[in-house]
Order: sequence, then C-alpha cells, then structure tokens
Amino acid sequence: MRDHGGDLDRAIVTWGAGPWLDLSTGINRTAYPVPALNQRVWTDLPTRADMAALRAAAKAYFDTPADVVPLAGAQSAIQLLPGLRKGDQMRMISPTYNEYSAVFQVAGWQVTAVDSLEGLVGADVAIVVNPNNPDGRRWSCAALADLVGRVGLLVVDESFMDMTPEQSLAPQAGVKGLIILRSFGKFFGLAGVRLGFALGDPDLCAQMAHAVGPWPVSGAAIAVGITAMRDQMWTDAAKTDLASAAAQMDAMLPWVKIGGCDLFALYDVGDAGAIQAVLAAQHIWTRRFPWSNRLLRLGVPALADLPRLQQAVRASDLGHLSL
Amino acid sequence: MRDHGGDLDRAIVTWGAGPWLDLSTGINRTAYPVPALNQRVWTDLPTRADMAALRAAAKAYFDTPADVVPLAGAQSAIQLLPGLRKGDQMRMISPTYNEYSAVFQVAGWQVTAVDSLEGLVGADVAIVVNPNNPDGRRWSCAALADLVGRVGLLVVDESFMDMTPEQSLAPQAGVKGLIILRSFGKFFGLAGVRLGFALGDPDLCAQMAHAVGPWPVSGAAIAVGITAMRDQMWTDAAKTDLASAAAQMDAMLPWVKIGGCDLFALYDVGDAGAIQAVLAAQHIWTRRFPWSNRLLRLGVPALADLPRLQQAVRASDLGHLSL
Repeated sequence: MRDHGGDLDRAIVTWGAGPWLDLSTGINRTAYPVPALNQRVWTDLPTRADMAALRAAAKAYFDTPADVVPLAGAQSAIQLLPGLRKGDQMRMISPTYNEYSAVFQVAGWQVTAVDSLEGLVGADVAIVVNPNNPDGRRWSCAALADLVGRVGLLVVDESFMDMTPEQSLAPQAGVKGLIILRSFGKFFGLAGVRLGFALGDPDLCAQMAHAVGPWPVSGAAIAVGITAMRDQMWTDAAKTDLASAAAQMDAMLPWVKIGGCDLFALYDVGDAGAIQAVLAAQHIWTRRFPWSNRLLRLGVPALADLPRLQQAVRASDLGHLSL
Repeated sequence: MRDHGGDLDRAIVTWGAGPWLDLSTGINRTAYPVPALNQRVWTDLPTRADMAALRAAAKAYFDTPADVVPLAGAQSAIQLLPGLRKGDQMRMISPTYNEYSAVFQVAGWQVTAVDSLEGLVGADVAIVVNPNNPDGRRWSCAALADLVGRVGLLVVDESFMDMTPEQSLAPQAGVKGLIILRSFGKFFGLAGVRLGFALGDPDLCAQMAHAVGPWPVSGAAIAVGITAMRDQMWTDAAKTDLASAAAQMDAMLPWVKIGGCDLFALYDVGDAGAIQAVLAAQHIWTRRFPWSNRLLRLGVPALADLPRLQQAVRASDLGHLSL
C-alpha cells in the first residue's frame, strides 16, 4: 500500500498511543454530525429511488447540470480513470496526490509531471487537482475550460473545492472530454463513509456507472450524504469555522507557507523529518512527502484543538529547530 | 439498470405503499443487530490495521488458508472478473444470477450457458454459483476442485453458502486458477452495508485488491463485518432459525418446489405473473425471472412473518390459481 496521510497506526508504533491530534490528512476535524439512521439503510439493498435521490442532492450541492455518478470515495473514481479511454500518455500538474501516478503507471501508462496547464496540452488524459494537494495551487475556470478539447480527457479533481464553490468548474460541466471529481468525506469530515462523485462527460459517466455496478455505495453513505449535502446551514457554518481555524493555525506557525486551502497548509520547515518527530513526540501527527526533505503538510485542526497545537509550537521552539 | 430483486420501489408504484413483506430477495430477514459504532468509523479513513483485522475475521469465518480481499459486496467482485485474465469465452451454469452474463457481455466476452460442470471445460472463465440462485442446485467440493486447471479461471460464487459451511470450497482455496466469492449482506441480513469478499488465487486476489484501491469498504462495514463474523452464537442461532423458517414456508406453499436453500426457494407456480400479482395485492413481493413464465422465487420470511404469508396463501386460494 502506498504512503498516505491517515496512517496514524504507524505513528502509534513509534510514538505510542494517544490521545493524538491527527493532522496528517486534509480533512475537516469537525465532522458533520451523523444523523440517526433508519434500520433500512443497513438491511436493504439501496433502491433505484435511493440512488436517484443521492444524485439529485449532489447535483444541487455541486450546482451542476452534468450527470453525477456516486462512487465509494473520490479514490474509487481515480481507480477507474485509466480504463476510460484509449491512450498511454497521462500528464499531471505535479507534485500532487500520489494515487494518480500510481494507478496510471500500474495500468501501463506513461506518466509525465508538468508544472503548468500549457504542459498538459496533447496528453491523452490530463489531471489537475484544483485546489492542488498539497501545495494549494489554483487554476481559474476559464483557464481549465480552455484546456478541454486540447487534451483527450481533462480530469479536474475538486476534492478540496467545497470551501470555495465559486471557483468550481462543476456549473460548466457536462461537455465532452471533461470529468470533475468531488470528495464527500473531506469537507464533511466523514472519510470513513466512503462517498465521492464523478461528474461531467455523459458517455464517460455512463461508463463509470457501469464499471462499478448498481450498488457502489452503502445505504448509510446514501442517507448521510443526502442529509449533509442539503444542510446549507451546516455547510455555511463549516466554511466560516474552517477559514477561521486555518488563519489561526497559520498565524501560530513559524514557517514559510507554500500554500494550502482551509483544510490543510504546506510549509517549508527546513528539516521535515526532525520537525515531524518533534511534533509526533507531543502526539501531533503531520504529513511528509517522499519527494521533499523540507516540506511538511498540516491539516487544519478543529477550533477546539488549536490551543494544543499552539502549546506544542511554543514548547518545542519550532522556529529555532527549523533554521 | 438490470432487473433485480430488491426492487420494492417498483412494486409500490403499482400496488401502493406498505407495510410490505418483501420476499423478492434471498436475504436473511432477521438481520444481525448492528452494534453501537464508534464515531471513528464515520470520520476516519480505514487504516491498514482496520483492513487487516477485517481480513483476519473473514479468513477465520470462511475457514480458509487463502488470501481474502474485502470488497463493496460480492457485486463489486463480479464487476472485476472480466478484467482478471485474457480471454473471451465465459461459460456459466445457467440459469443463474443475471449480473454475470451482463457484466461479461458488456466487456466483450462471449457468454455460453451450460447445464453441467462438464460443459464448462475449456472456458477461459467458468462461473458456478453454489448453491445456485435461483434454483438451489449444488455441486460437491470434489467435483469443483476437479475442474480447477481444466478451465482458465474457475469462479465459485458462494453467496448463499453460510448456512452450509461444510460444503464450502473455501478451506481448499489458495490454489491458482480458483476464485471464491462470498457475500456478507445475505446471511447477515445487511445488504445495505455493501461488504463481500473474494478469496483464492494469490495473484488474482492481489490484482483485485489493486483494482479497488486502498479503501474499498466503509468504516462501518469494517466494524460491523468484524463483529458479526466473530459472533458464533448469532450465526449458529441464525442457521437454526433460517432452516426452521424455510421448512415452514415450504410446508405452507401449494406449489412444486424446484429447489432452494434456507434463504430462498424457487417454485413452479403455473402462471408466475398472476401469482405474483395476487401476492402483491396483499403486499407480499416476490421475484419473477424474464426467462420463465412459470417460476417464482420467494425469499424465506422471518419467523415472525410466517403467519402473514400463511394467511395470504389461504386467503387467495393459491393452489387453485396455480392449476
């Protein structure tokens, strides 16, 4: 299994049991409160009507005219991408989420890392994570839309877009040659539910829906997903809280910020291994990347956990360590 | 979407809202009681340790030395089968569960229905559902094991094997060229959880695990699955209750039984459309098949619902109708 955030069990092996403050993933640590679930979500196969209601809730939440395919997390969509069209040249804005390169390489594709949209032109499949993970780079809808047709298939991964819906390409989706991926678990803080969506090109959406079969997500995922995506009061409050927590985290850290969004930020900490170990010794778990010895990504803590991070920063004199 | 049991929403359109006695699927109607779930199963990505614990519980429950791959239901395994090996000749004992033929045909395979194990010899992929759905046919472990190596890949779908574990091929799995599929939702009555397993050939298991990525099942599925598969007191009692309910159902129905298992039975009812309608008018939903006008499949009701079926049978004079 490849390296990921969410590998707290490995941290525990080295630094002992918690309570840990797990900032290794870019996920909302103030989760949507799971509603009481009807017994039926456990016992019954999801019906056509259940799936249709989930798709409708997602279409409204993403404000898109396009077909929406529910999947067991955005990861499930990534697994399907190499099979969507013929070709062997995948290009992606890099560095980015490591699953893309891994999944395409195993499927026999040549993967080329590029650092600008222009570098994607001509690819059979082009991947842009927007905002990008882990560095928070963003591209305008106009620039991305301009790329459609100049690559075989453009995949825009909007797993971290919920906080800035005005920047989403979803309202312009539905055209050929464009697939947008959305995560449910990150913004709603419910990664264990395994729910995500692909939307866009009607033929490719039909292909993805066929590939996963009639029951790709659990009854609980359908029920929780519908309730959460319709809850505008919660989503509005969550955006405000995340923005506040992200700003407060940033203010208390002594490092140069590379970029981020309201769910995570990437910092140049000097010696990433040393800083990760110092924080881990205080049971705060962060994320390193195999391609950099200087960069460390911190998920944004819940508002209530900010004092704990502050205390750890002060106690360890991180500013000194990172020189 | 293809025709399936579990389509109660369509029955409601014609015959009105319930309470319905849904016997359209072969699923335990006395579900395993879902335990209280830790908040973590919703919020956190399943860890490597979570997945390892699920695999261990499944290995013990299936009594198998083979690798076990957790999937989002047996259906998820079926979706992966055409991609597991090169070839274009799939043969299956037929009639059987309709997803096999559909999934292989869309993938460009030629599907041949046969009626004996000998007819499978030489196929690139051979499918046997044991016990078979919907007619309950069974094949011995010796006869099935003898087929391994005489077909490219033998897939034995044991979705309805939990009641008769002594007939399972799982203890002999792990050899090349054999994959066994197991359902979690049917015997435990938790189809909405979306959990199933593939086990057997180590290379093909690795291929399936890769195809679905690191988080194929939800945190809730992992927690419920582990608890349920370890609960031998419940599984023993469930087997006894299902055997009793199946025998009682059979005794009260006036038709010739074609076959079944303790989760469903297939009957020659004469005019399947008429009998289905008569029962549906009393809000009992059953399963017809597009390939037969005479056959009707009834899921075994919970013990507590048997009197309701009995009453419907008496009220409608089904024996007379089916002449």
